[in-house]
Amino acid sequence: MTTLDFATPIQALIPAVEERMRSQSNGYRPELRQALDQLLVSGGKRVRPTVALLVAAMFGVEQERAITLAAAVELLHTATLVHDDFIDGALLRRGTPTLNAQWNSAATVLAGDFLFSQAAGLAADVESNDVMRMFAKTLSTIVNGEIGQVFSLNGPSTREEYYERIYAKTASMFELAARAPAFLSSDAQGFGEPLQTFGREIGLAFQIVDDILDFSSDTATIGKPAANDLRQGLLTLPALYFLEDHPEREDLRLMQEDKLHDAARVDALIEEVRSSDAMKRAQAKAEAHRQASLEALDALPDTPERQALVDLTEYVVARLN
Amino acid sequence: MTTLDFATPIQALIPAVEERMRSQSNGYRPELRQALDQLLVSGGKRVRPTVALLVAAMFGVEQERAITLAAAVELLHTATLVHDDFIDGALLRRGTPTLNAQWNSAATVLAGDFLFSQAAGLAADVESNDVMRMFAKTLSTIVNGEIGQVFSLNGPSTREEYYERIYAKTASMFELAARAPAFLSSDAQGFGEPLQTFGREIGLAFQIVDDILDFSSDTATIGKPAANDLRQGLLTLPALYFLEDHPEREDLRLMQEDKLHDAARVDALIEEVRSSDAMKRAQAKAEAHRQASLEALDALPDTPERQALVDLTEYVVARLN
Repeated sequence: MTTLDFATPIQALIPAVEERMRSQSNGYRPELRQALDQLLVSGGKRVRPTVALLVAAMFGVEQERAITLAAAVELLHTATLVHDDFIDGALLRRGTPTLNAQWNSAATVLAGDFLFSQAAGLAADVESNDVMRMFAKTLSTIVNGEIGQVFSLNGPSTREEYYERIYAKTASMFELAARAPAFLSSDAQGFGEPLQTFGREIGLAFQIVDDILDFSSDTATIGKPAANDLRQGLLTLPALYFLEDHPEREDLRLMQEDKLHDAARVDALIEEVRSSDAMKRAQAKAEAHRQASLEALDALPDTPERQALVDLTEYVVARLN
Repeated sequence: MTTLDFATPIQALIPAVEERMRSQSNGYRPELRQALDQLLVSGGKRVRPTVALLVAAMFGVEQERAITLAAAVELLHTATLVHDDFIDGALLRRGTPTLNAQWNSAATVLAGDFLFSQAAGLAADVESNDVMRMFAKTLSTIVNGEIGQVFSLNGPSTREEYYERIYAKTASMFELAARAPAFLSSDAQGFGEPLQTFGREIGLAFQIVDDILDFSSDTATIGKPAANDLRQGLLTLPALYFLEDHPEREDLRLMQEDKLHDAARVDALIEEVRSSDAMKRAQAKAEAHRQASLEALDALPDTPERQALVDLTEYVVARLN
């Protein structure tokens, strides 16, 4: 487990969050416990629970309850990744074999379902109807976005569609992490909207940065070939900007339709996008969303936790440097 | 939609339950709405929501809240069926093509996830932490049971394992339907345990009857070849009794290991089980669980709803005649 690269006032609680996630599987089949353990070991930087814990601390939410909520959010995120990787046929995540690389489809789907049920149990333990409703709605939003991707043969072709997709895929979960803790404190009344805006905007920035990194990094750094999304026919922000600048480019359209199989042409196209102005425009967009998230933070009480959230937004875009 | 074959005081509310389930998908992708519509049309007899509505009415739970809870229970049940059918590769359910018969695996898994999220949303709308916790726990129990089946190569080999399996698969959901409404009324205090016992026992009877029907019916009546479970290597109660009486029968063991491919021997074995004493013993067991469910009902207030629950237990076993 690697936590964030900068100190936040609540980082010491992350192990407790992971323990809360892990203890959920007590009493269930050893295979499920083993799956959960493995997912926890290969878990990311816990950005979402960090956001939830910071907001909870800002408004004096009781610590045990904050830990439960943070664990519910992260377990929901983990559950969606299990079904995502199954659907994409991804064999690695963060350099570790995915569940579907080891288990058959039945077991993988059920493991994801189990994590959903455990996440729902944690959300119920938070004992807030508002949290529970937002939790369920977030899952609906995420799944709705993925269904959209499955049924729209060619993926997003416009920036508008791209934004819908990354809102559903990533920003909605950050909204949940930022907004939900405010339901648990009367001190947070009136702060729901800026918190939700903060979550959405930093979530959008986060995903755009990921999509830029997909282009700019290579196998050595991110464990996937460069422009993995584009290779699978998925146009993300850099590719969409490039396409807007070069509407005549038939090769991009062909890639989107999975009809460009000439490896040299594919590599050349990717290299062209990488060195184009589109990358800088995407980067500027990520920065704009980060600025919008900072503006939302301005509305919150001036506390060490708010400062930590400011630092967190810096961390999100700093991954580009 | 076919409701139960006998009148209950609340049957008039079932259309409202279905409408509540359906309206959940408003605002989401048309494919998801279409999937939900189709699942609702081919839905069963709504036994579980009937149980929930009867218990709710017995204790004066506000009607809208009762409808929401009944819809949450039935939608959770529907969601588990979608992933079940995907895992089993089942192409028909109640004579209607399953989702996985029409959609690819990605879309089918996501449709199930969507139904989970919508069911969780309905459960949250009930606004009871106890209901929400029991809802999440029931899903964990169901999934845990299915995982057990995926990982135990040969399925249940003892009656004890069989009971664990049908508790997880069926009885736990009946427990939820019967127990959860009591969380919503102070009048129901002290009745939680008999309600849960009623749900578990009638759920066990229900599944044993299903397993007997799997043997005694044929394609014309249930849309599947007789002894479909056994043909897939799964020993249910009639087969387990038969095996206890004939421990020397190598053919049953071979079927369990999917190693008996001689069609004539398979058919002969099935015919032998069908005409054996094992069927009657299984039937007696279903009746015993029904009796246990009736004993649990004795502890409840003498109301028209209780009488309807008694009638419902009769209906469950009457399917055998």
